[in-house]
Amino acid sequence: MADAALFEFLHTEMVAELWAHHSDPGPGGQKMSLCVLEGMGFRVGQALGERLPQETLAFREELDVLKFLCKDLWVAVFQKQMDSLRTNHQGTYVLQDNSFPLLIRMASGLQYLEEAPKFLAFTCGLLRGALSTLGIKSLVTASVASLPTCKFQVVIQKT
Amino acid sequence: MADAALFEFLHTEMVAELWAHHSDPGPGGQKMSLCVLEGMGFRVGQALGERLPQETLAFREELDVLKFLCKDLWVAVFQKQMDSLRTNHQGTYVLQDNSFPLLIRMASGLQYLEEAPKFLAFTCGLLRGALSTLGIKSLVTASVASLPTCKFQVVIQKT
Repeated sequence: MADAALFEFLHTEMVAELWAHHSDPGPGGQKMSLCVLEGMGFRVGQALGERLPQETLAFREELDVLKFLCKDLWVAVFQKQMDSLRTNHQGTYVLQDNSFPLLIRMASGLQYLEEAPKFLAFTCGLLRGALSTLGIKSLVTASVASLPTCKFQVVIQKT
Repeated sequence: MADAALFEFLHTEMVAELWAHHSDPGPGGQKMSLCVLEGMGFRVGQALGERLPQETLAFREELDVLKFLCKDLWVAVFQKQMDSLRTNHQGTYVLQDNSFPLLIRMASGLQYLEEAPKFLAFTCGLLRGALSTLGIKSLVTASVASLPTCKFQVVIQKT
């Protein structure tokens, strides 16, 4: 087990580096950086997914897989469980974290809300990657109404 | 405490992303990527250094600081201690890890040796950053004679 802060510090550096890199300040450059972060998260999520105990691969129900992410995956990465999980029972799930660790260090004024997306892209990818390893294709987006609460919306892609 | 693999996976992605980015295949592009990785490691090392228990800041002897890095810092990041520490007692230290975790997954043929530097730059920065927080200015380089053994050379910069 590694020091939990290591992941957070490294994530912060990665976001800063990508933002410095794609120096195009317009929406194009930012979108590119978000895509890169999401892609990195996806591959890390896939790799973490492959380390899961084999019995988890026998999940029959989609909902069980989502519950597993909210508990085991979240604890492995953030040392806490997701605070709530809701679903419309039609393939859309909303996972809410009331104090998302990667947002906690941000100041909480409304003016910082626009900075939030770059701290969420990696984790969206992480969820999508872990789901992919468990055989579920999905789209994952995140939204923040008030810091540091964060909602991840998972929409299952039926094949 | 986070899953130890998380750091390794993220480090791998970071190296891959930086190599894809600085697509200039010449020595200039590679050197740039190494500098960026070293800089990220430096800042993560500084931040980790600030989390150390306060009593460590009272180290009087340079050698005590180096021993601390070989034990506590290495355990926090890699879940193992450094295998040996040698010094010429004139400000140069050689820290040897006989199975450096970030090299273990690499194939071990001689032909892979030239790939090793990109997996060492971040950790060189990490050592330099932690030393910096502890008040010691240094130069840190790494070398590999046979995978996955790795030597980090720390040269203290006297002011």
